[in-house]
Amino acid sequence: MFSAELKSDTLKGLVNIISTLIDEVKFTIKPEGMTLKAVDAAHVAMIEMNITKSAFESYSAEDTELGLDLDKVKGVLKLAGAGETIKMEQDDSTGKLVFKVGNITRRMSLIDTTGMTDPKVPQLNLTANIAVPIEELQKGIRAVESISDHITLKAGPEFFELSCEGDTDSVSLKLDSTAAKITTDTDVCSMFPPEYLANIIKAIPTGTQVNIELDNDYPVKLVFSLAGGAAEVSYLLAPRIESE
Amino acid sequence: MFSAELKSDTLKGLVNIISTLIDEVKFTIKPEGMTLKAVDAAHVAMIEMNITKSAFESYSAEDTELGLDLDKVKGVLKLAGAGETIKMEQDDSTGKLVFKVGNITRRMSLIDTTGMTDPKVPQLNLTANIAVPIEELQKGIRAVESISDHITLKAGPEFFELSCEGDTDSVSLKLDSTAAKITTDTDVCSMFPPEYLANIIKAIPTGTQVNIELDNDYPVKLVFSLAGGAAEVSYLLAPRIESE
Amino acid sequence: MFSAELKSDTLKGLVNIISTLIDEVKFTIKPEGMTLKAVDAAHVAMIEMNITKSAFESYSAEDTELGLDLDKVKGVLKLAGAGETIKMEQDDSTGKLVFKVGNITRRMSLIDTTGMTDPKVPQLNLTANIAVPIEELQKGIRAVESISDHITLKAGPEFFELSCEGDTDSVSLKLDSTAAKITTDTDVCSMFPPEYLANIIKAIPTGTQVNIELDNDYPVKLVFSLAGGAAEVSYLLAPRIESE
Repeated sequence: MFSAELKSDTLKGLVNIISTLIDEVKFTIKPEGMTLKAVDAAHVAMIEMNITKSAFESYSAEDTELGLDLDKVKGVLKLAGAGETIKMEQDDSTGKLVFKVGNITRRMSLIDTTGMTDPKVPQLNLTANIAVPIEELQKGIRAVESISDHITLKAGPEFFELSCEGDTDSVSLKLDSTAAKITTDTDVCSMFPPEYLANIIKAIPTGTQVNIELDNDYPVKLVFSLAGGAAEVSYLLAPRIESE
Repeated sequence: MFSAELKSDTLKGLVNIISTLIDEVKFTIKPEGMTLKAVDAAHVAMIEMNITKSAFESYSAEDTELGLDLDKVKGVLKLAGAGETIKMEQDDSTGKLVFKVGNITRRMSLIDTTGMTDPKVPQLNLTANIAVPIEELQKGIRAVESISDHITLKAGPEFFELSCEGDTDSVSLKLDSTAAKITTDTDVCSMFPPEYLANIIKAIPTGTQVNIELDNDYPVKLVFSLAGGAAEVSYLLAPRIESE
Repeated sequence: MFSAELKSDTLKGLVNIISTLIDEVKFTIKPEGMTLKAVDAAHVAMIEMNITKSAFESYSAEDTELGLDLDKVKGVLKLAGAGETIKMEQDDSTGKLVFKVGNITRRMSLIDTTGMTDPKVPQLNLTANIAVPIEELQKGIRAVESISDHITLKAGPEFFELSCEGDTDSVSLKLDSTAAKITTDTDVCSMFPPEYLANIIKAIPTGTQVNIELDNDYPVKLVFSLAGGAAEVSYLLAPRIESE
């Protein structure tokens, strides 16, 4: 049994983040909310998402799993205006998920979740922690797009830097401790594939504070909340390690 | 002799509707207004349009025919701002149609209308009549685009439904008698090709009330007015009849 | 030594004009400002630009040359909001040009200007002079795009006309002496390639007054200023001479 209502903007925010990695996802539904763990096909990035029932206008569920094609859900989002409420209810007889937006009813077949195992989330203890408004990261991503080589993230006790070094040109965004809240005793530095970092940073809504956890040649972890704090997202991206 | 002035928005509204079906059209010009009857190349849909002289800022004409390439007329529309007046005058010596928009003069060769016979408009007496704001139909069309199979129109004494059934998924817009004015004693139902219905419904300007005439496995007729009531349009679309 | 600050909008206006002709350019830098002379690859059009130091928020330079790839500069412009200041400074040790926009630093390699000789600007004494708001020319260019043949510019003591004659259709923008300030004793007329004229006319910002110098089968010269009068541009376009 699953039945819920939520604002179209809330659903859109969640779908935008997940679909930077994959289109076919399994949500684990529980009475107190839903969770998702997913990796992309290349096993380079991983998303962990916890959505509490307070993200919804109404929510009523027993333990179950929902396999969703996010492309279809995006189709439903196009039918709802900003601020409009979307109702979702699983039809017990057919197993389909029924979306209602105003006078429109959309019956959607679900994906078989048998064999969709949750990826194992590695426990990492990363040295540096940087809290930064997403707008700054988005500016940095726009800047490095002209170079489009690996992106280097670097932090020290007094700075955070997102940079990109091409053969002849280079670009960097450098924030001091007034623009970012930085917690680290030593300098740390890792390199990352630019498209992954660009996609997730562009998908995070403006106004969001992002916590970056960083270390030397280690994955980077972006932690942020959506839906006014009712959904917590953790995004993990593997580093590109320079071979000599 | 033909000479007329009209608002660019009025001309745009008329051209948008006709060009859902064909690009090369024959207008029959009379002193009291102009008419058009046209079918698409596949003979699936038909438009009948009556434009009274009150749709124009000024209008002066003798009985004649004008063969127009609507793609060229769309080019003229791009030169006019919203609310700007477009003057049209046939040059008696060259036979060309001369458009004037502000300081710009556009001389357009006409299409030879010899052999462009008017299609015969079938007389239909359809059971159900549904009056509905175009915005509702546009919402329904956006919804069925994710399925893109045949569209079913259905009406009963208490409801009107636009729906689409795919192999695994389905979607429907259902209006009760508060959202649509429905006149029928029995239930009626026909199926239609989605692209035709989508094109005409998207081309009708918001704020328009559309009268739908519907029956069982019969053409559907959409009747609506443009240009503040000065132009009357009747659009007829052949059904897709399911073969068993 | 070169170091300057300017508003992003100013830089954008200058780059938009030059890049209608070429992407790789040489600026001649002097203590009182910078100049540029450039022809396109087909040697059909030429730009001469003089930018005084008053176009800049700050400016400090010795005699030098800067070879710039305008595509890269456009990348920098995307990083700056409207009204934001862009700092440029040549790094004496590497020779690179360093752009700073807010927290972003972009190091750009320069193009080798050895062998980039300035084109010789022909001295022309053209009969007719027409001063016209760029908006009128932009309307005319939009109008002739539907015909896309050679563009004819014509002027007489009482009129200025931009027109285009196709095989069956034609279009013209005609301005009288209230819409354009015209100085000529005789009628003059030349034909020009449409893409060149369209590109430069579209690149000139609205609100600009353009001085057109015109003669019979001679180049046309467009003279206008940018950056609130601090930059002067002269654009010369070769005519298409009809062979009999």
